[in-house]
Amino acid sequence: MYAVIMAGGKGTRFWPRSREKMPKHLLDIVCEKTIIQETIDRIAPLIPAENILIVTGISHAKELMKQVPQIPEGNIIIEPVGRNTAPCIGLAALHIARKSSDEIMVALPADHLIKDAKRFRHILSAAAVMARRGDYLITIGITPICPETGYGYLEKGTRKTTVKGEDIFEVKSIREKPALSQAKAFLKKGGFYWNSGMFVWRVDRILGALKKWLPDLYEGLLEIEPALGSHQEKSVVDRVYEKIQSISIDYGVMEKAENVLLVRGDFGWSDMGCWDALWEVSEKDEHGNATHVSGNFVGIDTRNSLIHSQRKLVALVGVEDLIVVETDDSLLVCKRGCSQNVKKVVEALDAKKMRDYL
Amino acid sequence: MYAVIMAGGKGTRFWPRSREKMPKHLLDIVCEKTIIQETIDRIAPLIPAENILIVTGISHAKELMKQVPQIPEGNIIIEPVGRNTAPCIGLAALHIARKSSDEIMVALPADHLIKDAKRFRHILSAAAVMARRGDYLITIGITPICPETGYGYLEKGTRKTTVKGEDIFEVKSIREKPALSQAKAFLKKGGFYWNSGMFVWRVDRILGALKKWLPDLYEGLLEIEPALGSHQEKSVVDRVYEKIQSISIDYGVMEKAENVLLVRGDFGWSDMGCWDALWEVSEKDEHGNATHVSGNFVGIDTRNSLIHSQRKLVALVGVEDLIVVETDDSLLVCKRGCSQNVKKVVEALDAKKMRDYL
Repeated sequence: MYAVIMAGGKGTRFWPRSREKMPKHLLDIVCEKTIIQETIDRIAPLIPAENILIVTGISHAKELMKQVPQIPEGNIIIEPVGRNTAPCIGLAALHIARKSSDEIMVALPADHLIKDAKRFRHILSAAAVMARRGDYLITIGITPICPETGYGYLEKGTRKTTVKGEDIFEVKSIREKPALSQAKAFLKKGGFYWNSGMFVWRVDRILGALKKWLPDLYEGLLEIEPALGSHQEKSVVDRVYEKIQSISIDYGVMEKAENVLLVRGDFGWSDMGCWDALWEVSEKDEHGNATHVSGNFVGIDTRNSLIHSQRKLVALVGVEDLIVVETDDSLLVCKRGCSQNVKKVVEALDAKKMRDYL
Repeated sequence: MYAVIMAGGKGTRFWPRSREKMPKHLLDIVCEKTIIQETIDRIAPLIPAENILIVTGISHAKELMKQVPQIPEGNIIIEPVGRNTAPCIGLAALHIARKSSDEIMVALPADHLIKDAKRFRHILSAAAVMARRGDYLITIGITPICPETGYGYLEKGTRKTTVKGEDIFEVKSIREKPALSQAKAFLKKGGFYWNSGMFVWRVDRILGALKKWLPDLYEGLLEIEPALGSHQEKSVVDRVYEKIQSISIDYGVMEKAENVLLVRGDFGWSDMGCWDALWEVSEKDEHGNATHVSGNFVGIDTRNSLIHSQRKLVALVGVEDLIVVETDDSLLVCKRGCSQNVKKVVEALDAKKMRDYL
């Protein structure tokens, strides 16, 4: 059983902590460990380090290797440029298939939070058992708690079987990020799950699906395959990535394939898409304030706020629903509920050519 | 004509910029000059530097002298401990009286803002002409623009005369800081003015008033008088200040005296009592944001806020009515309208023995 950790994220929405050189998964914004360290530690009891591959960009590889030294250097797969999840999964599948073509492959984003790691591993292993049985592409669906429009939705079909106590369902449909009204209708109707972007399949099955649904990408992978491990690997990968289409595995494969299954992931999941999400998952004091401070914090009449400070004393007076983030060179103050718009700050800085802050 | 600048303020309400060692009047929070520099520059065309005395505490004297090098060192009067305005004015009056007992003395707080300096000087000179005529204690009253409960109010009596085009009124009553309902009633009734804490009188007249209304303080001044300029001066002043009552000139003299006059000060006045006041007097952009930043500022959906940053980039997203202040070691985020409560932060820091931040 192999894990592929997809660590290609840029994470501008965690500015000013996340930067071009320091994307979200490399940050210690939740606890003392970084998010990628947590991700690796979470699957370690299930999958040994030598079977964990991490796909990342060249500019983050060095820092990443420093953070997870237990992962063999050869397991760090470097993409010359981000081309969304389909090429990333395809490239990783090649690496695994070289060892054994019927291995189970678990594909996981590097930057998600999961509260109940034990439950998470149980569901992964149930999915793995199912994946081993045949030509299935298994998705993990999260029970929605709000009509979130930032995620795709999986519509549950009939129950196919039960493995290790977990029901496995067929997938009736996959809906791209819906409008709010549609998302609300999904929740009302029931049977819809957030697409977590976590997948389990046999490596030959996903390569087969790529061949069928994304033949151009598959052609590229065939070009790369003989060069793997050779001196030519980097130049061939560079050449292929230059020309291949940027496309997600959801859009490119999952929405079209007929052999998609769903297992429900009830393990306390957050994709940590923005600072708002960090407040949601953080422990709070009796006033609803979540503090991640190296320095000190004084709150006077302050409620339901997130305080994330690297060095300074932070004092808040008479405020509520704020996100306050202090880094060495920048300070962000954002209304809770608006942190999706932090990316607009990054855009503004980019437009002003203030590259030091990016 | 002499000016006495009362520079004894602690200004905890401008924390984190104001500190024990750096009170408000020594800060450059309004423009490039510090507030005391502005105060001195404002009266310089009317009163020469050698006639300007500054009363301050020992811990601020050195920085103050650095900021206003044009004031002779002998004109810096040091109080061993703050005892409110009556002793401060009495001590300064002694210094002036030693030179000439019938001099005009203008007493001014060090930390007020005045927009129209020319008009301010005109009103001072009109008050000075009146003060020279007799036994008058002249106050400058500010037309109230809101029912502020933080100031005393002067009730205008009958018009006594007109000097240099300025009406001079008798004062019917002086009201200490009123309740909100009372302040509202004052505004509705009309004829009430904020007590600005700025006074004009002959030096022998104020010493006479102190003798009459604050005889204990006057006794203390008599003890100090012969020691002025001698080696004993400091020890005598220390001894007298140890025992004298802390009392304001308003409460100790003005409210009791019958020879109080009022001249109206319509020169754009602010006592800059807190960060809210700084936003009020600051120039704002089209979104109502006032920025005092050494670094950079990016505002996304941000309105009616004050941004005061010494070094960092400050980004605000989706907020309004905030005061954001960044210093080397601290960060304050305060709702506009609540900045009076910044002193509670200082109290909390004091209680926690976090003296570095005081």
